[in-house]
Amino acid sequence: MKAALLTIGDELLIGQVLDTNSVYFSKLLNEAGCFVQEKRVVGDVESEITEAIECYAKKVDLCFVTGGLGPTNDDITKDTICKIWSDELIWRPEIEQELRRWFLKKGKQPNPMSLAQANVPSKAQYIVNQLGTAPALILKKGHCHFVFMPGVPAEVHGFCNSFFKTWLNDFEIKQNVVHKHLYTTGLSESAIAKRLMDFEAKLPKEISLAYLPDYITVRLRLTALFDSGKEANLPIEQLFQELKTELKDIILFEGEHSLAQELANELVAQNKTVSTAESCTSGALASVLTSISGSSQYFYGAVVAYDNKIKEKLLKVDRNDLDTFGAVSLPVVEQMAKSASRVLETDYALSISGIAGPTGGSERKPVGTTCFGLSDGTNVWSKQVQFFSNRKENIRQACNFAMLMLLQTLKQNK
Amino acid sequence: MKAALLTIGDELLIGQVLDTNSVYFSKLLNEAGCFVQEKRVVGDVESEITEAIECYAKKVDLCFVTGGLGPTNDDITKDTICKIWSDELIWRPEIEQELRRWFLKKGKQPNPMSLAQANVPSKAQYIVNQLGTAPALILKKGHCHFVFMPGVPAEVHGFCNSFFKTWLNDFEIKQNVVHKHLYTTGLSESAIAKRLMDFEAKLPKEISLAYLPDYITVRLRLTALFDSGKEANLPIEQLFQELKTELKDIILFEGEHSLAQELANELVAQNKTVSTAESCTSGALASVLTSISGSSQYFYGAVVAYDNKIKEKLLKVDRNDLDTFGAVSLPVVEQMAKSASRVLETDYALSISGIAGPTGGSERKPVGTTCFGLSDGTNVWSKQVQFFSNRKENIRQACNFAMLMLLQTLKQNK
Repeated sequence: MKAALLTIGDELLIGQVLDTNSVYFSKLLNEAGCFVQEKRVVGDVESEITEAIECYAKKVDLCFVTGGLGPTNDDITKDTICKIWSDELIWRPEIEQELRRWFLKKGKQPNPMSLAQANVPSKAQYIVNQLGTAPALILKKGHCHFVFMPGVPAEVHGFCNSFFKTWLNDFEIKQNVVHKHLYTTGLSESAIAKRLMDFEAKLPKEISLAYLPDYITVRLRLTALFDSGKEANLPIEQLFQELKTELKDIILFEGEHSLAQELANELVAQNKTVSTAESCTSGALASVLTSISGSSQYFYGAVVAYDNKIKEKLLKVDRNDLDTFGAVSLPVVEQMAKSASRVLETDYALSISGIAGPTGGSERKPVGTTCFGLSDGTNVWSKQVQFFSNRKENIRQACNFAMLMLLQTLKQNK
Repeated sequence: MKAALLTIGDELLIGQVLDTNSVYFSKLLNEAGCFVQEKRVVGDVESEITEAIECYAKKVDLCFVTGGLGPTNDDITKDTICKIWSDELIWRPEIEQELRRWFLKKGKQPNPMSLAQANVPSKAQYIVNQLGTAPALILKKGHCHFVFMPGVPAEVHGFCNSFFKTWLNDFEIKQNVVHKHLYTTGLSESAIAKRLMDFEAKLPKEISLAYLPDYITVRLRLTALFDSGKEANLPIEQLFQELKTELKDIILFEGEHSLAQELANELVAQNKTVSTAESCTSGALASVLTSISGSSQYFYGAVVAYDNKIKEKLLKVDRNDLDTFGAVSLPVVEQMAKSASRVLETDYALSISGIAGPTGGSERKPVGTTCFGLSDGTNVWSKQVQFFSNRKENIRQACNFAMLMLLQTLKQNK
């Protein structure tokens, strides 16, 4: 079964909004064994929406469409549906009732424009919205089921959790996809590829290997695409074992989950806690460490010491060291990490101080220079790394490096 | 001039990677006065890539293509280019030289697979990569210039800053786009639309109004699309003034920049500093406050008190209050904010404590319950808000709410 994703909205074309819905749908459909063949973003323009829908009606079996269902005049998806399906809007009292209930819950009065969300194309199956006003709509064209939803991410998640996850089960999915993931560190993409030349040469055509490099790590994905019931014929498990043997010295972990999740798993398994002392990353590391639900089990807190006086005051960094070596130096991150593990009372503490950019660099310490500290309460380790990117990306990579540092220590201590 | 964006890569179709490049390109092209008509993501599949390129060759004048230029076997973009343009790969010694220089800088030896990046389609104009190994390629088909780049965001930014920003100037851009933005808070999307019914009715067809709601705020965008030199005929400025008059009681600020940038501007203008004390957001607020370059001018630091004992120890929150009212309560956030402004020595301090979810909710305090504190050193204000979304989104909305709280206070104090 093939799927496509269509997003409607000028805000995505002018770069005002980052499209997170399509990542969510991709995962959802992949988990359901449904292959996403294409994604497209078009503006709130009737001809563009129509062209995309006509194209997908021929090409795929399922298409999730988001956007353009708001109550305001710039949203034209419902009118466009009526033109494509030769349909007209009709008033659905059940939706009106739900809308009134929704406004009541929020302590507000519905206005006529909001209530107009009860007007939907007569040929559409509709699903009421628990987290907003626009209902979801399902219509079929050719072999393709089109599912229309509003673009607000929370509402999309609401619809999928309450309805579409179950709804997907009713499809007879003829094709299956299996992914196997390895997370590695220590070798570049091309160095790994050189090592895997023989392995890749013998892969059957239904199985492919993909490389996803991310500065200090490379994720590998082995994908098998096969007709339902034929999985037994494909040696995906055996090939994955071979891949693991080939790369055993550089494997960090196995699975699709993130570095933060793997670190969380390891901390919980070893019953250890962590805190952070952050300068240039300014809470980004604490934030990613707690992006995992249940993180209170292993994370207690952080000191963000953006200004040097906070480094002195809360993390007892020596003023002379700050003056002599600078805030971005190994002696400073070592003191930051040691203090954090003591002040925040955790088994481990990670510290980061660097020059994220775009300003603040010098010849000796260019933008991207970043120092890392790791303390276990008794010992402290530190390392200086050079990143080469922009502010946002340097910060992201620094958080990854710090997590990697702790994860490797935890795995060695097992 | 019309543009399109094409992203090649299975990782985007299975939801493994968030597509940030397209946001970057959209902004870049919009600033150059170039209208992005469509975005598309296809897999590393020859037929899919070819179909998209043939389509855009007829439809647009410029197409940025990213992905599939890596050195490994899963990357097929260069071979596909050769088929579409009936071309073949040739060895470019200049690229090889740059590659050797790049590896030298990193203290590494290039392997043959990396050096193969010097093989490029003979008909392509190439630009060497300062931040990676794959060169960018320019080829023309029909009226459309296709620009191929690797998908790594840092490399994309490198190419654009060093070459494509200037290169775009050489195009004779016939159509112009002007956007005017207003950031509002206090009224819902449909309440604003109701108020603007007469205003919208009289907009000329070249000017459109879009609504971008984000829980507690609504951004409005007035867009004019016109032929070069005809801007004088369009009353965009006058209409924007009218819009501002209509909405003067709910306008937060004017312009396309973010809430964090507006808050930074205001703090700098008033020469004030801020710190944060965070529980459920765990550094996310500190991180967004420092996403602006130069943030050390107004931001000193943060205490992330994820665990209650850190709230007691570093922020002197009363143990009895924690027991009596709970960590998510107004007395607690008030103490957190007061302590933060004192401990971190800033004019203002923001505090947040809430239940981000998915676990931790109760009947009295469901998931999404969030308390906010704001201290100016002397006075303290607090507020409880209910969010209705998932963990990640509840955290993002909480950060926005806290920034809004401080921004409104700063504007009132002017």
